[in-house]
Amino acid sequence: MQPKLQKNKTITVECPATIANLVCGFDILGLALNNPQDIMELTLTDEPGIRITHTDAHPLPTDPLHNVAGVALLELMKEANDPSLGFDMMIDKRIKPGSGLGSSAASSAGAVVAANLLLGNRFSNEDLVRFAMAGEKLASGVKHADNITPCIYGGVTLIRSIFPLDIIQLDSPPLYVSVVHPQIEVKTSDARQILRKEVLLKDAIKQWGNIAGLVAGFMKHDHQLISRSLEDVIIEPVRSILIPGFDEVKKSCKDEGALGGGISGSGPSIFMLSTEEKTAIEVEKIMIDIYTRLGIDFKTYVTTINTDGVKLINN
Amino acid sequence: MQPKLQKNKTITVECPATIANLVCGFDILGLALNNPQDIMELTLTDEPGIRITHTDAHPLPTDPLHNVAGVALLELMKEANDPSLGFDMMIDKRIKPGSGLGSSAASSAGAVVAANLLLGNRFSNEDLVRFAMAGEKLASGVKHADNITPCIYGGVTLIRSIFPLDIIQLDSPPLYVSVVHPQIEVKTSDARQILRKEVLLKDAIKQWGNIAGLVAGFMKHDHQLISRSLEDVIIEPVRSILIPGFDEVKKSCKDEGALGGGISGSGPSIFMLSTEEKTAIEVEKIMIDIYTRLGIDFKTYVTTINTDGVKLINN
Repeated sequence: MQPKLQKNKTITVECPATIANLVCGFDILGLALNNPQDIMELTLTDEPGIRITHTDAHPLPTDPLHNVAGVALLELMKEANDPSLGFDMMIDKRIKPGSGLGSSAASSAGAVVAANLLLGNRFSNEDLVRFAMAGEKLASGVKHADNITPCIYGGVTLIRSIFPLDIIQLDSPPLYVSVVHPQIEVKTSDARQILRKEVLLKDAIKQWGNIAGLVAGFMKHDHQLISRSLEDVIIEPVRSILIPGFDEVKKSCKDEGALGGGISGSGPSIFMLSTEEKTAIEVEKIMIDIYTRLGIDFKTYVTTINTDGVKLINN
Repeated sequence: MQPKLQKNKTITVECPATIANLVCGFDILGLALNNPQDIMELTLTDEPGIRITHTDAHPLPTDPLHNVAGVALLELMKEANDPSLGFDMMIDKRIKPGSGLGSSAASSAGAVVAANLLLGNRFSNEDLVRFAMAGEKLASGVKHADNITPCIYGGVTLIRSIFPLDIIQLDSPPLYVSVVHPQIEVKTSDARQILRKEVLLKDAIKQWGNIAGLVAGFMKHDHQLISRSLEDVIIEPVRSILIPGFDEVKKSCKDEGALGGGISGSGPSIFMLSTEEKTAIEVEKIMIDIYTRLGIDFKTYVTTINTDGVKLINN
């Protein structure tokens, strides 16, 4: 049966920010946030091709071939194999590009989830991850899925393998997330560049102990195990050098009672998980104090884990 | 309150074989088996010191300072801090030393669990792991806990960290385990020696994806996820060279329907996990055929995961 197309219909979706890597889970773990979220409107039209407009102030390209949402949507259209398909896309980007909060993933994921809704859900979530990865490749040069996946599925997700794609949704307790985005530039490509190609086996063993502990901690809803496992001996010691204030933020927030945290994605944002809202708010205050003192512009959020992923907000 | 000592009482315990490493979980994961198991008798006596006898044919040292069970028990006695304590120990070793099935761990763990029972359970399981690790240090030169821990706790266990010791019990579905012990010598110290000190970051990432998948697979009782995650890109490619027939055993057993498996501990035993008993028996036949054809002496087992750990079998 041919899925029902919703021609000339406009839908609006919310596309959550995401935290990739989750400290010890470099390239494999991620979670979605309830704030910030992009807003995206998509219309299925009679005019073939993609037309992109931005209502935000970010100087992002509107040529579909140079826009992450455009590239992701083209990937979906290629597989849909219907040359008559056309889309008008309006993006209100509220997740700042370069923040380390999955801004490009939100656009790529939002575009393909919205398009799939308009095309009668002909593709699976796993297909949508595959399409959206084309956007990530444009943004960072690498087809990674650790922002895309939580953005589409919601919650905490594990990418066991990227080729072939193997996605596992992990149960987790409700947690509060404090985020600070110090407004300095850390390019994903630079952040990848400074990593060593080889790591000590003994460090790798520590890391996989922590990853195993973190997965078990989420699934058992064991806050203290999550806390003990939020330790990264491989990536953070290198990348944190690019983020002024990182060590102080991390230490002070943990002293305040945060379970732990680290660099969001490849930075510069820093996130901290807490069991209680009041701790998360105290943690935000610490973040504000430190970056105010350092004289670096910043933005903070206190939010929770988003369990929906990209979501229709009108119909 | 002083715990009640059971002077001149003899107790008998069963001490299970264990599989360390669990393919991708090098140094952190392990599970206990219902077969083979050592039998150990321990008597708390009025004569200070430790006296060890063996009823098996293995030429193991009986000097407590050179016997893994003796060394583990001495560690416990040191902490018990009672110079009047004395033990007679009788070991019937049914787990062949050097098999890769945790023979030394069974002795070390059995000794301290039995002693703790006679001393009125004054120590925690975590204490017992600490004591028994002294036995592992004597056996292999390294204080590892990935056989000791499942031997004491039973089931599938994760050592998130060894210093400080952080043990997590993982739920798992009931599984059948087929084991072949090709009777060639692979020394734990040699098996450690041939590992590279550095690994590629990209391989480490694959490995931790699999570890995360394996932990999630056990906890979700997801057999197919367990199967997909039983892949080791770091240790097995190096160590399997020491085990003739390894590649053929692994491939043929997986073709037969085993979920997967690999080297038990540092070898030479090979284990395979299966969902159904009949698959596990077919897998054992394949193991028998291959080692018969290769002209290498071997022993096989078809068993299940032991969920008790070291267990009192009389009182």
